[in-house]
Amino acid sequence: MNTPAHTVTTGPLPASRKIYVPGQLHPIRVPLREIALSNEPALSVYDSSGPYTDPTAQIDVARGLPDLRGDWIAARGDTTEYAGRAVTDADNGFATGDRLTPAFPHQRAPLRATDGAVTQMAYARAGIVTAEMEFAAIRENEGRLAAHSRDGDPMGATLPDLVTPEFVRDEIAAGRAIIPANINHRELEPMVIGRNFLVKINANIGNSAVTSSMAEEVEKMVWAIRWGADTVMDLSTGRNIHNIRDWIIRNAPVPIGTVPLYQALEKVDGIAENLTWEVFRDTLIEQAEQGVDYFTIHAGVRLHMVPMTAKRVTGIVSRGGSIMAKWCLHHHRESFLYEHFDEICDIARAYDVSFSLGDGLRPGSIADANDAAQFAELETLGELTKIAWAKDCQVMIEGPGHVPMHKIKANMDEQIEHCQDAPFYTLGPLTTDIAPGYDHITSAIGAAMIGWFGTAMLCYVTPKEHLGLPDRDDVKTGVITYKLAAHAADLAKGHPGAQRRDDAISRARFEFRWEDQFNLGLDPDTAREMHDETMPKEAHKVAHFCSMCGPKFCSMKISHDIRAEAERASGMERMAEKFREGGELYVPAKEPAE
Amino acid sequence: MNTPAHTVTTGPLPASRKIYVPGQLHPIRVPLREIALSNEPALSVYDSSGPYTDPTAQIDVARGLPDLRGDWIAARGDTTEYAGRAVTDADNGFATGDRLTPAFPHQRAPLRATDGAVTQMAYARAGIVTAEMEFAAIRENEGRLAAHSRDGDPMGATLPDLVTPEFVRDEIAAGRAIIPANINHRELEPMVIGRNFLVKINANIGNSAVTSSMAEEVEKMVWAIRWGADTVMDLSTGRNIHNIRDWIIRNAPVPIGTVPLYQALEKVDGIAENLTWEVFRDTLIEQAEQGVDYFTIHAGVRLHMVPMTAKRVTGIVSRGGSIMAKWCLHHHRESFLYEHFDEICDIARAYDVSFSLGDGLRPGSIADANDAAQFAELETLGELTKIAWAKDCQVMIEGPGHVPMHKIKANMDEQIEHCQDAPFYTLGPLTTDIAPGYDHITSAIGAAMIGWFGTAMLCYVTPKEHLGLPDRDDVKTGVITYKLAAHAADLAKGHPGAQRRDDAISRARFEFRWEDQFNLGLDPDTAREMHDETMPKEAHKVAHFCSMCGPKFCSMKISHDIRAEAERASGMERMAEKFREGGELYVPAKEPAE
Repeated sequence: MNTPAHTVTTGPLPASRKIYVPGQLHPIRVPLREIALSNEPALSVYDSSGPYTDPTAQIDVARGLPDLRGDWIAARGDTTEYAGRAVTDADNGFATGDRLTPAFPHQRAPLRATDGAVTQMAYARAGIVTAEMEFAAIRENEGRLAAHSRDGDPMGATLPDLVTPEFVRDEIAAGRAIIPANINHRELEPMVIGRNFLVKINANIGNSAVTSSMAEEVEKMVWAIRWGADTVMDLSTGRNIHNIRDWIIRNAPVPIGTVPLYQALEKVDGIAENLTWEVFRDTLIEQAEQGVDYFTIHAGVRLHMVPMTAKRVTGIVSRGGSIMAKWCLHHHRESFLYEHFDEICDIARAYDVSFSLGDGLRPGSIADANDAAQFAELETLGELTKIAWAKDCQVMIEGPGHVPMHKIKANMDEQIEHCQDAPFYTLGPLTTDIAPGYDHITSAIGAAMIGWFGTAMLCYVTPKEHLGLPDRDDVKTGVITYKLAAHAADLAKGHPGAQRRDDAISRARFEFRWEDQFNLGLDPDTAREMHDETMPKEAHKVAHFCSMCGPKFCSMKISHDIRAEAERASGMERMAEKFREGGELYVPAKEPAE
Repeated sequence: MNTPAHTVTTGPLPASRKIYVPGQLHPIRVPLREIALSNEPALSVYDSSGPYTDPTAQIDVARGLPDLRGDWIAARGDTTEYAGRAVTDADNGFATGDRLTPAFPHQRAPLRATDGAVTQMAYARAGIVTAEMEFAAIRENEGRLAAHSRDGDPMGATLPDLVTPEFVRDEIAAGRAIIPANINHRELEPMVIGRNFLVKINANIGNSAVTSSMAEEVEKMVWAIRWGADTVMDLSTGRNIHNIRDWIIRNAPVPIGTVPLYQALEKVDGIAENLTWEVFRDTLIEQAEQGVDYFTIHAGVRLHMVPMTAKRVTGIVSRGGSIMAKWCLHHHRESFLYEHFDEICDIARAYDVSFSLGDGLRPGSIADANDAAQFAELETLGELTKIAWAKDCQVMIEGPGHVPMHKIKANMDEQIEHCQDAPFYTLGPLTTDIAPGYDHITSAIGAAMIGWFGTAMLCYVTPKEHLGLPDRDDVKTGVITYKLAAHAADLAKGHPGAQRRDDAISRARFEFRWEDQFNLGLDPDTAREMHDETMPKEAHKVAHFCSMCGPKFCSMKISHDIRAEAERASGMERMAEKFREGGELYVPAKEPAE
């Protein structure tokens, strides 16, 4: 039998400490990461890592994280505790004995809405600013108290100087943003996804029938959020799906997304044709009770769209999309997801599970980008968005995929038009097909661009894409790659405050504060290792050069010499003024600076 | 004493063989790489790797590559062999004994123009289609004989269906393209750089005072071109610069670029103020005689621009730029490079050394992007371009650096305007500063975009940027990353034929031809290794799934099931037609496909 994992990674990132900003409206404390610098005030940054990076937190994977939201939810007085659905053998793929991942030891009775919707959208529309909204708002400001200079092209986004809880409420009420926060995921530190907020990233984890275990998956989740994943999707297939998911959610401070169809398919032995609405419905309730924060629902793949994929180079590349296409074709019936979408909404609103409307017909190759099948589905997703909104359900829309650069903008434009500004959530897109092993990079190019254009969340791609299941190292590479792409997008949009970190690292670089440069980077460990490969000594950490150019050719060192010389010669600025006046410019210094 | 390296990497890439396409106008044979596929005709692709990947070639680093161009040059009858400048101790930084890299054993007397210009531009303007032009033209077509369907936004580029030698001539005559091809680099396989051709990439190598040897640098060059570097810059500093360069050029089938200022600075003991025109001039001749194909000349950094950098966050980050700024400021004199640019052109035209006009004031941080200093220099580079063109010298223009996404386009637009469509050659640009250790990726985003917008050559950035001297692994990562960025740009521009390789790999992917998928990728070895981590068996190479999703969840497998089912049900296309006619759609299959 698998032993519960106690081996998750804990402890702060280098030179970092966890700080907590109190709420004004609610009794909340919002975590930020503060990076200490050697000769500047500390820089605070967004922190998705949860209690794992707080050395004072008691981490016990077998107990799960503390119940953060229980009181907030109880205070709203609109939910009821109930016995919940009994776990069946089918939920874990009939795994038994040694092959069965043990159940999470501390089970809580689930909550559901007493009546009507308990979604953040319902509250927002009712004018209520929830604790979740305030929590998310405070995070967005990254500890800033004031506006910062702006420099960017927001491409139509509305970016306030400081994000207020009321701004979050308004965005959610309008459907332009979501806070994925199932009432049964009480361990959650809420966050917001929308075009008018910082660009977020998602990391996929999950075992497959071929490889990996619960302990590995919990650690992958902790590892992914340590490096900056804002949400995590558990895409497990095979056996033990139910129990692995429980372990993940109970230990997750970030929203957890799933594709319920995967588990439903396991329940019918992997035979797509045998799927039924009843099995699917049961799976939704099972997962909603566990606390899944968002469901990918491939309800946009409709019967009449399947033939549109016949001439494609790579057919249907979404797992959920292909399963539904097969079902539709086999039964020559309309998708049961599409037909029962109203009922799906009724489940979602009772637990506040957000929708991630899946792009089952996304292109899987450059050749198939922006084709009729893809855009037909997108229009349907727009229809479904309206149905969900009518039930106060929160919605985001999934997007491609594989798209060459010149076709990326159209994806964003079509999505905004058809889906009425519901948040867009894209996978990459990959901008070429020819670099297996490097698809984190082919896709980071597309991700940064579409993030700039307005995509709210970027689903990471790891180096293993198309080749195998990512391991822990791949997860880190994928997360860091997507953090830098999302940040490049924030900079280009002109998100106020985004450039603080770039400027801080650039100052550190110019002043040869190597430790600060490492610590301000997205991956301090790797930066330090790379530097130390050739210059490992402590003394090198204050050296005014590195091994790239050596001491005589360091342009930054020479820049300092220039400034020093200019200072001696009475100041660069005064020299510049003199120059503008047309006078004699510079008094030569007596001695060479070297 | 260093022993001459005989350890360079040779042999074909997986499933690949070297083919040679004969010229029509000249007795040339142009290398291409042909990738064998299991059930399709072989795909031919551009091949920068030189004889090293031809198993029939005799590789002996101590002899250098064969003299490919000697006859072409002799046939033009416009050059004279002469004794050449004697190598001085200063040329190798006064290295002696064990510290002296041995001279390349087979020295040839240099050639220079008997009179006037022997540049490709001079020939082009005279209406002459040289062997170099035909060679470059044939490469561009990658073995295609016919037009391919186009899909892209060329952003103003003119992309013919097939590149003819005459098209190359016309582009060079107009200054829109260059063929860097020093008459003393006879080992060169010529290639063309310009907005209307495939996007090229450059890899920087070179020792620094702190680390690495001649043998390592020769191998880095061979390694870089193996993975696709189109040109290589030798940025060596410290001792042995002359001799290391000789070893590199004699073994290089690609154009070699240098920054002559680095060696000139070594000759004056690293004291920028002690630089003189005479020392610099002597260095230009030294390197021109060796066969350097292009010189980075930082003649655009002028005295009055230096104060413009005073308020920058990261000052001057170009090594050459900072050296010249220091010189100007110290002497409070105009740059000797600017003042002697006419004489520099006289040297360049006598050997056909192309110019890469250096952007000494490029931004080194997001904060400094697109500032007054940067654009002032760019205007000056436009002036210098006209001076060079008046002397029939070939010119490209260097560009940034660190630029957030929303400011990238302006760089291209300004460059085209001020530099009259001379090819642009950019470093990245990096789209954020916060990811040291991952700057190959932060910059690949900017590189792909600016490549699409019209940049002709992208200078790679390795993971070690800002941290240390790249080693062999870093060189490969940098090259592959930039190849994929350049290819993404070619796709977005709609370069005819660019999508052939994407389509071939996508077909292989859809058909589970794993070996073909690996072999068509930019890095077959890494793709194969990643796949084999979890599925190492030979049988897995034909498996209809990988460990990412496992057998039941492979969307591509399911897509095939769908198509098979549709075929049985009388064809997907007919079904689609029936649907359009509004009839009953599908005949249910009798048995589930699984």
